[in-house]
Amino acid sequence: MNNFEFFNPTRIVFGRGAQAKTGALVKQFGRKVLLHYGGGSIMRTGVYGQVIDSLKAEGVDYVELGGVKPNPRLSLVREGIELCKREGIDFILAVGGGSTIDSAKGIAAGVLYDGDIWEAYMNPEKTPTRALPLGVVLTIPAAGSESSVGSVVTDEANQLKRAINSECLIPRFAIMNPEYTFTLPAYQTACGASDILAHMMERYFTRVDHVDLTDRLIEGAMRTLINYAPVAQAQPENYDARAEVMWTGTIAHNNLLDTGRIGDWASHDIEHELSGQYDIAHGAGLAIVFPAWMRYVYRDDVARFVQYAQRVWDVDLSSADPDAIVMEMIRRLEAWYKRLGLPVRLSDAGIGEEHLRLMADRCLLGREAVGNFRRLKADDVYEIYKIAR
Amino acid sequence: MNNFEFFNPTRIVFGRGAQAKTGALVKQFGRKVLLHYGGGSIMRTGVYGQVIDSLKAEGVDYVELGGVKPNPRLSLVREGIELCKREGIDFILAVGGGSTIDSAKGIAAGVLYDGDIWEAYMNPEKTPTRALPLGVVLTIPAAGSESSVGSVVTDEANQLKRAINSECLIPRFAIMNPEYTFTLPAYQTACGASDILAHMMERYFTRVDHVDLTDRLIEGAMRTLINYAPVAQAQPENYDARAEVMWTGTIAHNNLLDTGRIGDWASHDIEHELSGQYDIAHGAGLAIVFPAWMRYVYRDDVARFVQYAQRVWDVDLSSADPDAIVMEMIRRLEAWYKRLGLPVRLSDAGIGEEHLRLMADRCLLGREAVGNFRRLKADDVYEIYKIAR
Repeated sequence: MNNFEFFNPTRIVFGRGAQAKTGALVKQFGRKVLLHYGGGSIMRTGVYGQVIDSLKAEGVDYVELGGVKPNPRLSLVREGIELCKREGIDFILAVGGGSTIDSAKGIAAGVLYDGDIWEAYMNPEKTPTRALPLGVVLTIPAAGSESSVGSVVTDEANQLKRAINSECLIPRFAIMNPEYTFTLPAYQTACGASDILAHMMERYFTRVDHVDLTDRLIEGAMRTLINYAPVAQAQPENYDARAEVMWTGTIAHNNLLDTGRIGDWASHDIEHELSGQYDIAHGAGLAIVFPAWMRYVYRDDVARFVQYAQRVWDVDLSSADPDAIVMEMIRRLEAWYKRLGLPVRLSDAGIGEEHLRLMADRCLLGREAVGNFRRLKADDVYEIYKIAR
Repeated sequence: MNNFEFFNPTRIVFGRGAQAKTGALVKQFGRKVLLHYGGGSIMRTGVYGQVIDSLKAEGVDYVELGGVKPNPRLSLVREGIELCKREGIDFILAVGGGSTIDSAKGIAAGVLYDGDIWEAYMNPEKTPTRALPLGVVLTIPAAGSESSVGSVVTDEANQLKRAINSECLIPRFAIMNPEYTFTLPAYQTACGASDILAHMMERYFTRVDHVDLTDRLIEGAMRTLINYAPVAQAQPENYDARAEVMWTGTIAHNNLLDTGRIGDWASHDIEHELSGQYDIAHGAGLAIVFPAWMRYVYRDDVARFVQYAQRVWDVDLSSADPDAIVMEMIRRLEAWYKRLGLPVRLSDAGIGEEHLRLMADRCLLGREAVGNFRRLKADDVYEIYKIAR
């Protein structure tokens, strides 16, 4: 087990009716709020009205900024920063999923940042240490941003997607009502589940020894997700299934499951090029990349993959043939993705071979390697894309 | 799954050498510190000197108050409160185990409390909402107080043991170096492990349905503890085993494993009378009480006990006979306690039958029932003591 620090002060308010506490929670931190959201779905579902009601009931003054899109854009972040400065905003409330939260985090940091916030995204040494406090009303369980340190924003003018990670970006609270996820379309439910599983697999495939507690915690959370994501998809208004998926999504990414270990994260980097190049959802891209990554690297620590196969996917084959155990695990993982309606090959998503080399090279731009389980170079990433054909 | 709030902002600094950060962490919150500890063990082991060095390196001013005993006493808490007021203390640093931390919490709340702090311990409606900030250097993994809301203090004059629970008591940080537990005697290691397991079993045996994620998380943490506590005891300087036990002890009691469920806690109440009446460690008392409680109540939800037997203790008997499965689980649990050198019957601890009725009646003093899995009355508690003979 490695030395570690763990700090996660987000107050989770979870369950039916949780949104009624929004106004009172906001009032603990701010007097004038930026209400940040995406498109019309929160209007259609009634979430918007309930949040506004709660703010008004507490007499909280607010200004609105909608229009967040998937892969949140730097231009809107900059617009939000100017708006906050002009209006004297002292708290940001994000209502939505990971994109809205990540956009809100960019604004929160940008308001107090000395210079243009994009400098911080482009230079890890310029990571912000101060931000306006922010809170979340979560409507999509997937990204885990509701209690994470991270924000990913895209500079659409230059097609650059970059992240900042800082404790000052951890939301002060997250309102989580599983009923808010009843209206998620089946495909979005699937993509969210894939992202949540990926957050846990990235952490699970570590080369750090003696991490038994976190192994066990990750395994338990993965089994829960694997069981309930298809139920939530098939029965959209099954509260219990939605609740298990939603709470698992937060635990998967609040860094508790990281403690004492070093995750891999190559699959995320490899996927980012894919969804940058093609119009494909992050969760769908991960379903294509992860099995291919596994096939390429598993022999570096076959025991860890066998443990995963046995404890999470109940593979019960002869230990004399670890390769067969791992292949059966990958088969079950792919079957799970397919059952959710996700692609598991590039061809399933209609993606051909024309850009594989380009994407592999671009994946390594500005860095020596990706991943920690095995340090991968551009040639390795190219091979993984080829396996995924 | 029930609605819940989860909030746990303790910064965990875990690993070899973590104590070097003590001074810098203290400085974030206070300028003049009460250094609170127990007896001479932290002097013998060198912990005291290392903490002092770190405080001095950061120029932190401190005042000392030692002398905390197991079952921390109200008189020392009161002495600490007066000392803090007199010296203008604004931060409390507890160096030790659960008793020292609980005593420090009593002082921290008492300094800002309007009236005598014992009123808060005696009246749940007078729970404190403000306290001085406090931090912890942990030397004994057991109570989980290093990141919990609770403080248990004994009014030695009136033989009353009472608790307060408040978010304002959650430590700001906890320094956790597993090496600090190398010198724990074997019996204390065993009692700590028993307490940690009990914190998880109390949470596990719930009547709330659809708590699959937390079931899985608790099961994983219990398996880790069950595996590593005997290793830590047999090989006191096995860093990895000590680290697994130490981190599990915190997770077991920081309320994450509570989310969405209602724990039982009857066994804790029943044990408190036992260790109040007899000179027996809390962890040893729990090893006696828990198996007896299980035998008495398991038929109320045999499926939950079967799940526990199968997932945590690997009992693989025919599902046609759930009673046999549960009995085999209890046999394995008792064998684990015995392997650690703990008693599993009152007679193992030299305790006779003369006070069983008295303890049962006293256990129900001032309350209608104990426990949530089954609401127990004095006659029930008496039966459980008799099973434990």
